[in-house]
Amino acid sequence: MKHQLTRIEIVMADVKEKIATVVYMPGTRLPSVRAAANSYGFSPSTVVEAYERLQTEGTIYSRPGAGFYVAETTAPLSLTESGHNLDRAIDPLWVSRQSLEPSDNVLKPGCGWLPPDWLFEEGMRRGLRHAARGDATVISEYATPLGLPALRQLLTRRMAGLGIDAQPSQVMLIESGTQAIDLILRFLLTAGDTVVVDDPCYFNFRALLRAHRVKVIGVPYTPSGPDIETFAKILEEHKPRLYITNAAIHNPTGATLSHATAYQILQLAQASGLYIIEDDIFADFEVKPAPRLAALDGLSRVFYIGSFSKTLSASLRCGYIAAPNEWVESLLDLKIATGFGGGQLAAAVVLSALTDSGYRKHMSMMHTRLASARSQTLPRLEKLGIVPWLLPQAGMFLWCRLPDNNSATELANRCLSQGVVLAPGNAFSQSKNAENFMRFNVAQATDSRIFKVLAQALV
Amino acid sequence: MKHQLTRIEIVMADVKEKIATVVYMPGTRLPSVRAAANSYGFSPSTVVEAYERLQTEGTIYSRPGAGFYVAETTAPLSLTESGHNLDRAIDPLWVSRQSLEPSDNVLKPGCGWLPPDWLFEEGMRRGLRHAARGDATVISEYATPLGLPALRQLLTRRMAGLGIDAQPSQVMLIESGTQAIDLILRFLLTAGDTVVVDDPCYFNFRALLRAHRVKVIGVPYTPSGPDIETFAKILEEHKPRLYITNAAIHNPTGATLSHATAYQILQLAQASGLYIIEDDIFADFEVKPAPRLAALDGLSRVFYIGSFSKTLSASLRCGYIAAPNEWVESLLDLKIATGFGGGQLAAAVVLSALTDSGYRKHMSMMHTRLASARSQTLPRLEKLGIVPWLLPQAGMFLWCRLPDNNSATELANRCLSQGVVLAPGNAFSQSKNAENFMRFNVAQATDSRIFKVLAQALV
Repeated sequence: MKHQLTRIEIVMADVKEKIATVVYMPGTRLPSVRAAANSYGFSPSTVVEAYERLQTEGTIYSRPGAGFYVAETTAPLSLTESGHNLDRAIDPLWVSRQSLEPSDNVLKPGCGWLPPDWLFEEGMRRGLRHAARGDATVISEYATPLGLPALRQLLTRRMAGLGIDAQPSQVMLIESGTQAIDLILRFLLTAGDTVVVDDPCYFNFRALLRAHRVKVIGVPYTPSGPDIETFAKILEEHKPRLYITNAAIHNPTGATLSHATAYQILQLAQASGLYIIEDDIFADFEVKPAPRLAALDGLSRVFYIGSFSKTLSASLRCGYIAAPNEWVESLLDLKIATGFGGGQLAAAVVLSALTDSGYRKHMSMMHTRLASARSQTLPRLEKLGIVPWLLPQAGMFLWCRLPDNNSATELANRCLSQGVVLAPGNAFSQSKNAENFMRFNVAQATDSRIFKVLAQALV
Repeated sequence: MKHQLTRIEIVMADVKEKIATVVYMPGTRLPSVRAAANSYGFSPSTVVEAYERLQTEGTIYSRPGAGFYVAETTAPLSLTESGHNLDRAIDPLWVSRQSLEPSDNVLKPGCGWLPPDWLFEEGMRRGLRHAARGDATVISEYATPLGLPALRQLLTRRMAGLGIDAQPSQVMLIESGTQAIDLILRFLLTAGDTVVVDDPCYFNFRALLRAHRVKVIGVPYTPSGPDIETFAKILEEHKPRLYITNAAIHNPTGATLSHATAYQILQLAQASGLYIIEDDIFADFEVKPAPRLAALDGLSRVFYIGSFSKTLSASLRCGYIAAPNEWVESLLDLKIATGFGGGQLAAAVVLSALTDSGYRKHMSMMHTRLASARSQTLPRLEKLGIVPWLLPQAGMFLWCRLPDNNSATELANRCLSQGVVLAPGNAFSQSKNAENFMRFNVAQATDSRIFKVLAQALV
């Protein structure tokens, strides 16, 4: 069941958040009890109790007569939002952890990937057999710093098909899409920087940014992209360093960026020196191509990301970055320092699968299968009063509004106890204004038990 | 040819180092020209020139009449030591980059791994074929958060053989040994923390720590481990958070930790709250088992690391961490946030290879081959006046003193132009006192051309 934050816990969480994002540095004096009470609008005794609990935890310490100070960090990094004894369901890591846990008999309409039998298993098996009898270097040696040249060439041709003009020398292979984003974050950000995300956005962007100890600001997402007026205001007021977003099919909404919004994002970014990460891991699900920021921008301030976890295999780790030319060398240094040489084997198997004669047919079958799963899931949800925010053109997600008075967090907790893992809205929402929303994966929602459990759990 | 740092460059490099390790924060006022001149022992005009160049670069700015201040960071993270126009050969990334670059006809006695035909190629091919016809889940799905259970169980049995008592629930799989270390650093450190490394140590520890913006202090390494008196002094004076070292066979020296030193390290660590990363990637090269810190400590403050890049394949990325119980959950959160689910395929192939009936025979052959390469390389080096610091019991490295008046950096640059990649001492040395040393990999030093090039390049 959901745990409501008490006022004391709100103050504690706020202080911890400010320490995590280095608004408060070690040694910083905290606001006086009276000043804090005024600014929170709580009573002084609430603040006193919160400060005392923080002191007991070792987060802050007091100097008699001089107030409270932020302790030198002694506890290792924790990514949970408000301490371990609170509800993790509003935590951006909750959905990942639940989805990844071993799970006989658990249904996972909340997870972010396709069932294994939807993926290109035959192509992967052929790719593995091909590698098993192939070149000894590919089996045994580190890759060159950028990674397997033949795959990088193929990727530039695929990007060219989306209007993105990248040279193979700008493309580097990374173990996964998430690691690719992480590498760029490490490269661009220092603790205390500000980053803009879509609200809602892929929950792991939020977890990842937390690991970088940066301030995160959400921009409301509309059916054609981020709300441009708010985006402009955020850039002006907060001078963020980076905006991170999905290309093609937005996670969780399934929306698609319009040409006009793409153009305006880039104009604003250029004027304010903003960098952009465009995460295109759903590219191959697209039916009608949407504009890519990386194409308009010519890879000047956009870092473009892709991977194959959603189409080929999540078990074989291979992602890539197409980076602005001027940053390639420094990014490579960082790649080597933090991961040493990459391997060649995963890249070689991916190359085999992408060039396999069956790949195109497989993807076209997947599109049909997704469309069919979508049209079967929609009426089942609507019967329960669960209504999609928009009808996506492609992809696996439906971002849905729950019937009034239903808390997505509470619903997710109730369904979890019945063996159904859901993806509650606030895991995706920086402003926590999606408590009435839920993301469904239509490919993981074919089992009728899901809807029985939902029907019982809804209020 | 080697570029000697001028006094101006020394001042510039020092200021940048202090910014990188957040001794100077953005907005910090730099010491006055007069104060700086005094503390460096240089003339005021040298400091003025250095400050002006730093200002031109945008690293610092001046307020008329008020001095110089550290600029807000605007340039992305750079791991090179002293700006791009200086000599990279003293840089911890130089050896990695040179070793990993594509290289027809280049000889690499400086690189840190075995030639591909020394690795367990046949076992890897069998493992790949096995995976190709195996379970669809292993081919297609994310692993569970900790990673493939069967491999984690095997790893605990292998650790038990070294006296390390780990439960499978404490062992997590990571894409590589380097990424395993990186994950722990992210978990334990914040910018400005202090970390102790061996001097000399594996150069990539230095590059990796640079990416974490921490202060690094070297402790002189002796033939039986770190110099304990200095180690104790460092702990007292600098209160470091972490010590990172190799187990079994020290890189670059080939030395082995003694039981007495291991015991003293742990006692000092416990008394001062120091954490330890013990990197055991050379475990399988060992002939006579050395003590493991993780065994003595019972995985209470030691994080134990391993991988298979040096014995099975560098192309298939798979490493692991055995972590103190209390940190497993938080480390897993961080693993998922920064890399999402791991894969299963690499782990499954590693498991096949390690349980392959040919593995033991392969490793025993590799030991013989290394011993033979060592005994062939030694006289060839000694003929050139290049003398090992000690005679290692095992492994691939010889840490050697060059004949007097030879700079390892200059020698490495001269040999590089002749197609021979070396590993100059100062890449491994935090204090830069190894300019007269060179690391040789005996398995990569079988070609007689190497010694001809060396003979010509020595002064």
